[in-house]
Amino acid sequence: MQFLDKIKSPQDLKRLDLAALKVFSHEIRQKLVEVTAQNGGHLAPNLGVVELSLALHYVYQTPEDKIIWDVGHQAYVHKMLTGRSDELNTIRQYGGLSGFPKRSESVHDAFGAGHSSTSISAAVGFALTRDLRGENHQVIAVIGDGAMTGGMAFEALNNIGHLQRRMIIILNDNEMSIDPNVGGMSEYLNRVRSDPSYIKHKEDIELLFKKIPTIGDKMFQAADRLKDSLKYLLVPGTFFEELGLKYFGPVNGHDLSALINVLENTKKLNKPIFIHVVTRKGKGYAPAEKTPDLFHGVSPFDIKTGQVLAPKRRPTYTDVFADTLIQLGEQDERVLGITAAMGQGTGINKFEQRFSQRAFDVGIAEQHAVTMAAAMALDGYKPVVAIYSTFLQRAYDQIVHDVALQKAPVVFALDRAGLVGDDGPTHHGVFDLAYLRHIPHMVVMAPKDENELRHMLYSALCYEQPAAVRYPRGEGLGVPLDEKLTLLPLGKGEILQQGQTVALLALGAMVTIAQQAAELLHRLYGLTVTVINARFVKPLDEALLLEQLSRHQLMITIEEHILAGGFGAAVLEMLSEHGAETQKVCRIALPDEFIPHGKTEILKEKYGLCAENVVQVAVEKLNLQKEAEGLS
Amino acid sequence: MQFLDKIKSPQDLKRLDLAALKVFSHEIRQKLVEVTAQNGGHLAPNLGVVELSLALHYVYQTPEDKIIWDVGHQAYVHKMLTGRSDELNTIRQYGGLSGFPKRSESVHDAFGAGHSSTSISAAVGFALTRDLRGENHQVIAVIGDGAMTGGMAFEALNNIGHLQRRMIIILNDNEMSIDPNVGGMSEYLNRVRSDPSYIKHKEDIELLFKKIPTIGDKMFQAADRLKDSLKYLLVPGTFFEELGLKYFGPVNGHDLSALINVLENTKKLNKPIFIHVVTRKGKGYAPAEKTPDLFHGVSPFDIKTGQVLAPKRRPTYTDVFADTLIQLGEQDERVLGITAAMGQGTGINKFEQRFSQRAFDVGIAEQHAVTMAAAMALDGYKPVVAIYSTFLQRAYDQIVHDVALQKAPVVFALDRAGLVGDDGPTHHGVFDLAYLRHIPHMVVMAPKDENELRHMLYSALCYEQPAAVRYPRGEGLGVPLDEKLTLLPLGKGEILQQGQTVALLALGAMVTIAQQAAELLHRLYGLTVTVINARFVKPLDEALLLEQLSRHQLMITIEEHILAGGFGAAVLEMLSEHGAETQKVCRIALPDEFIPHGKTEILKEKYGLCAENVVQVAVEKLNLQKEAEGLS
Repeated sequence: MQFLDKIKSPQDLKRLDLAALKVFSHEIRQKLVEVTAQNGGHLAPNLGVVELSLALHYVYQTPEDKIIWDVGHQAYVHKMLTGRSDELNTIRQYGGLSGFPKRSESVHDAFGAGHSSTSISAAVGFALTRDLRGENHQVIAVIGDGAMTGGMAFEALNNIGHLQRRMIIILNDNEMSIDPNVGGMSEYLNRVRSDPSYIKHKEDIELLFKKIPTIGDKMFQAADRLKDSLKYLLVPGTFFEELGLKYFGPVNGHDLSALINVLENTKKLNKPIFIHVVTRKGKGYAPAEKTPDLFHGVSPFDIKTGQVLAPKRRPTYTDVFADTLIQLGEQDERVLGITAAMGQGTGINKFEQRFSQRAFDVGIAEQHAVTMAAAMALDGYKPVVAIYSTFLQRAYDQIVHDVALQKAPVVFALDRAGLVGDDGPTHHGVFDLAYLRHIPHMVVMAPKDENELRHMLYSALCYEQPAAVRYPRGEGLGVPLDEKLTLLPLGKGEILQQGQTVALLALGAMVTIAQQAAELLHRLYGLTVTVINARFVKPLDEALLLEQLSRHQLMITIEEHILAGGFGAAVLEMLSEHGAETQKVCRIALPDEFIPHGKTEILKEKYGLCAENVVQVAVEKLNLQKEAEGLS
Repeated sequence: MQFLDKIKSPQDLKRLDLAALKVFSHEIRQKLVEVTAQNGGHLAPNLGVVELSLALHYVYQTPEDKIIWDVGHQAYVHKMLTGRSDELNTIRQYGGLSGFPKRSESVHDAFGAGHSSTSISAAVGFALTRDLRGENHQVIAVIGDGAMTGGMAFEALNNIGHLQRRMIIILNDNEMSIDPNVGGMSEYLNRVRSDPSYIKHKEDIELLFKKIPTIGDKMFQAADRLKDSLKYLLVPGTFFEELGLKYFGPVNGHDLSALINVLENTKKLNKPIFIHVVTRKGKGYAPAEKTPDLFHGVSPFDIKTGQVLAPKRRPTYTDVFADTLIQLGEQDERVLGITAAMGQGTGINKFEQRFSQRAFDVGIAEQHAVTMAAAMALDGYKPVVAIYSTFLQRAYDQIVHDVALQKAPVVFALDRAGLVGDDGPTHHGVFDLAYLRHIPHMVVMAPKDENELRHMLYSALCYEQPAAVRYPRGEGLGVPLDEKLTLLPLGKGEILQQGQTVALLALGAMVTIAQQAAELLHRLYGLTVTVINARFVKPLDEALLLEQLSRHQLMITIEEHILAGGFGAAVLEMLSEHGAETQKVCRIALPDEFIPHGKTEILKEKYGLCAENVVQVAVEKLNLQKEAEGLS
């Protein structure tokens, strides 16, 4: 490649002319396709911001100037331009580059991201501290039109409109977040982009006014001021101008010259600037342009055909959730499906295909989704809110204040619970048990496999109180699926095998680990171990756990969740209330730290969520001696 | 009173004519002043919505039609009009009416509230289920201009602008939330209210267009469509119209006839309607009109003078926090104060008076406040985010994702932690330990008195990692305040008295309870009890607690917080990790339910957060026998 290997820093970039930049942009696209074809990753968003990233680093000088990428999955190009081209092939791999901006990775990553709609708030913070210090650098937030629908982006816009500090907000408008956008804002942007009556040049308007005759009519004495207002109102971007920002655009986001031009022209303006850039997701790679949603976050694929390699072998939890929700929807017309820009990821879009009137994708707006669902539930419907475990964190207050306090029977389907792998610490769903189980009136549960997910979802809708079901990302175990849905008794666990000495008390996907550990303990140490599928974190099966504790020397809890406040903690608390022998309990869970990105198998092994570690803990606690090898 | 005793339901109201309604409005104001002078409560907001409440219940028919009051502290008039006049004198008293809408209190309270910005989301939910059922009633959200700045209100507006369902949003625009509003939105509304160039009648604009000559110029071929756009853009409310709502207003919110008129005219429109009503907080009671912020939520006062009765005797925790923050601000210019429309309640406004450039009130926008603070901290400053414990729930995800993951040394000052009293379940700060302590990198602590708060705040700023200090609402203990601020060693507790048999391990305000219990146990049972001030929930003082546990038969943890996942749970977890005798531990905390409203003394006694209950627990666990009476 002519430039890719030579550009080691933003300074190098500045030596290129426009023609060279264009050549470079092709090289970047080629590299993006190659790397994501190999590793998987967020291809389409990055293809969409090649020119924007080049223009930003051409005009501005990081790390002095700060560029904040909202969500951050579109920062691959930024990484390439800031000295990380050589490592790009490690992206999203354990120990390699993160798929998101990360401060510890580079001084050019001003603010980490992963969740949506945070960039403007961070930019406001940086602008304020810059001004306190009397410095002069620029602060730039780059935010997609999808992320713009998240409430906190509006909170930040409202604040900067008042503060009037120098900063730049770039709206990367590609007409879609993960799923195509919905919302009044989205339709507004559509009009700005496409309606010819939104004249793009103020000069035109000035001319128009010259054609209006002087008005003597008393009714129009305020005409002069009216003209000012007209000028003000007639340019596109009124919405943002009303909030106190200076609007520029729309700008073609693939026209390097236009981008550099608008960035240069706005560079020194001493106020908050809003630049509306229109880009095309997947730009430059035909399969991604054609189906940008499929190439938003993609698994390794064949470059020539765009076909995903190694397609899944078994139905995912998401597949089973979607099919079950449709089945439930057929049985009861009060069942509703709600999501927040995760229709495809959660399977709500399948439900929508079957029941278009009963599915609601509110956009990136978890808070709104949850409170809306509370009202629907209180009005006699059965809303199922499907949101990834990590994103439901956004609606914690709404779950407490609108759902639980009013005992609204909302069902939460927490997909991507536990370790999610390559997306890393911003996306692992490892806090949900802790942030949900202390809320009064909540039911919290996790299925041992995708078949149990079916019964759990059905049961959750029967309990008539707020209930959450958490389940992992990816494929299920491939177990047979019962057609008939059965009510799981509230707060009852399941003994999978009764043994002695050690009881393994596992939650959700960790039940399989417990079974493997039981097998190992049997084979290596001659123990017949008890394996319990907890099913419920709240309410716990108190009678079962108390009885089993009394029958064993050791009870090991196993959960794919952080240790503090999780499932094992709940077990300890309950046993303590009953004055039981809590000293017999030992907990296996994730440590008190943020877990990095990498394949889930690697992470589970490293953090002890594996059969070998369960065995090791049992051996240490009980001081077991290995039996003669080969003994069954 | 002529009407107050006769109007028992909204139906009764409909028989009155306009003149009678006006008389009634005076009676209502009189009653509001009388009741809040007696009980305290949200006087100014309710005085502001007397006519709006009357007009709504005059035109609409609850409970079929649904009125949703945002925040809900302005629903006293609504309560009076829906059969609760006789009970109004019990408002905010234990066992009496709630100070907020509450579904369990009346079928006319469609959706409970307390936190801000939820009403539009709830209204969208109700509108969607109404349409699914094919019903015909109206759904009305009443939201203040302060609450409108909360992100989730925007999320809901964006969604309804797309859905285009029939519903009404009433903006109760009184130019202030608890504190005067700040923000681009607020300034926009100011322009709409006051700028004469915002012409209020579309007819005027039509006339103006007739004066524009036919345009032949090629540049203006789109002129016809342009005219349509002009009409569209020139009416006030562009901002809301752009989002897809039909705007009406501004309407004088104290003109009953105008209000009834606009409500009647918009009643049948089959789309989302936005009615902009301008009201005056405190309207009709001179002291409240003069200082609406003081009469927002007021303590019992003298009606004639407006003077608050029984003013505080000792400095509040808030006072001490504010003075300490100023002292810290003087010592270090990097110290910043941030709040979210709680400047007065948290004391940040005092800091602002001293350091106007270093205080930031972002409006009702907790999410934005926290992420903005994260950026400031990462840029080398020392932001102190002062937000009530219950409202910080809104920013849980931002604390995880923006602060903790990036180890941004933001200090959180959680005022109103624990039971807050009359405001009740939506405002009790009893979940904070559970939602904070499982987050990696967080320090979580609580001071035993207002003097320790001073040292804790100073220490939090020294630890160079995210740290939260929680402290109660109201007056401190009246202890002397050290002038010099001392660094508290991270994760170290304090033994206040060393005894034997029983160790009382107390957090925050519960230390006083523990000391009282120790005194009682000594007096009644001859025990010399150990009292430990825990100071830290995270990190716990492991060495101290392990050692003390080994020296006692019983360790009782005491916290003003919900049991699950709280301080006692943290102690259990830690001891369990060390294989210690967890069976000796007994926890006193709030039960797994939402705690009602009422005086905190009543609530603490009822829920066992009192010395008598601590003694009783010790007696039961140790099977103690009372010594001869009078024995010291």
